[in-house]
Parts: sequence; structure tokens; C-alpha cells
Amino acid sequence: MKKIEHLGIAVKDLEESNALFARLLGTPHYKTEEVASEGVKTSFFKSGPNKVELLEATHPDSPIAKFIEKKGEGIHHIAFEVEDIRAEIARLKAEGFTVLNEEPKMGADNKWVAFLHPKTTNGVLIELCQNRE
Amino acid sequence: MKKIEHLGIAVKDLEESNALFARLLGTPHYKTEEVASEGVKTSFFKSGPNKVELLEATHPDSPIAKFIEKKGEGIHHIAFEVEDIRAEIARLKAEGFTVLNEEPKMGADNKWVAFLHPKTTNGVLIELCQNRE
Repeated sequence: MKKIEHLGIAVKDLEESNALFARLLGTPHYKTEEVASEGVKTSFFKSGPNKVELLEATHPDSPIAKFIEKKGEGIHHIAFEVEDIRAEIARLKAEGFTVLNEEPKMGADNKWVAFLHPKTTNGVLIELCQNRE
Repeated sequence: MKKIEHLGIAVKDLEESNALFARLLGTPHYKTEEVASEGVKTSFFKSGPNKVELLEATHPDSPIAKFIEKKGEGIHHIAFEVEDIRAEIARLKAEGFTVLNEEPKMGADNKWVAFLHPKTTNGVLIELCQNRE
């Protein structure tokens, strides 16, 4: 794993949180993007080599809506950048981790992504992501 | 804020989790450190320009013990590296954030640290850290 690519934070109101994180990080978000398949609207902030992604649910069945209902707003996942996502999925499966989608799927920010089940990672939802060519 | 310095993860058993995160990140932890004032034993992993810090409580009143009791194991805080922690604390206070310790304190990994109250940051416990000279 090359680095922490981004930190994903579940928020109730993207517009309000965009203003809040702009004050916090000292820089405005540089893009927003909707990922219809995941039921989320996202925005991105840069922090040196890393990013902060805010996630707002677009419908009540969205994983983000369910997360906020259960745990409140807060850190939702951590994403690590990998060189070769298929090789990483195979390596992690062999190490005993549960990969939620063994076939990489299209995520936000032009990435191939896969998630590991938090039950096998001390309660942390981990995303692997690889830049799409 | 210069980058995500590290991600802090609350765990029940540091030894078990060190083995787990070594398999996950593909690299072993490179140091452990006890911060008596915070009631924690920590270990650190490198991930490119970033780190992952695991935190185990050393007594039942430790903030980490209380966090796990309330929320279970998982992501506890996110730390951003700053150039000048006192200037950052002053800037964030002026922006309306609640700084938990206005006087920087000594944290793990040879850093000056300060925390922002999660109530002012969408539920995210944020640490500011500056390398000590």
C-alpha cells in the first residue's frame, strides 16, 4: 500500500460541511461528484499528498445514511492507494481478510475500489483504490 | 495543514492488532511507545508519507478504554501535521472550533499535539501535530 489516499467522512449536509472543512483545512473543496451506484454525493479537499472526502447520502438506503443513523456523523472509512488492486485483493484474501467486492468497482475520483469488511480489520472500514488509466 | 500525519486506531489488544495490521499493510510496525499521561500504549506503521498508529489503553480510565467501551474498536482520530501548532490553534479558535488543549502537549512520536473537540468537526476527533525540534 503506497499511502493513505483519502479519509472518508460521513456528513448530514454536504454544503454546511464543505464550509466547515474549508475553515478547518484552510482550503476550499476542489470538486464534488455524485456516485449514483453508492447513493452518495462527495466532495474532496487536498491535504498535501492526501485527500479528505466528505460523503452525504442521496437516499435513505444509502450506506452513508445507515452509517449516520447508527453511529452519527464521523469518520466512515480510510482509503489506501495501491499499485495493483487485483493483486492486493488476492494477497489480502490469502491473509484471511474478507474483501466485500472481489471484483474492483468504479468509485469516485476516477478510481477502481474494493472494500475490506471491518470485522476482519479491528472495526475499520478499509478501501483499496487504484487510479484508473 | 501539511498532510495527514497519521490515523489513530483504538484496539483492545496491541499485540494481536500489530500482527493483523502487519498482514494488512504488508509491513511490520517499526516502533512502540507508551504515553503514560494519556494512558495508552501505541505502535506505528509507515504507509508512504503517512503513518497508522494503533492505541491500546493501559488502564480502564484511559480515553481509549472509554472509546472502545462506547463505540468498539475502530478509527479513533485523524492527525494533521502543521508547521506551527500555536499559530494553527489560534487560527482554528478564531474560526470557531473548540480546541481541547490550548497549550500544546507532548504526544507520542516526538510531537507537540493539540486536539479539536469532535462536536465542532462533524464528529471527527482531530489532532494537530508538530514535530518537536
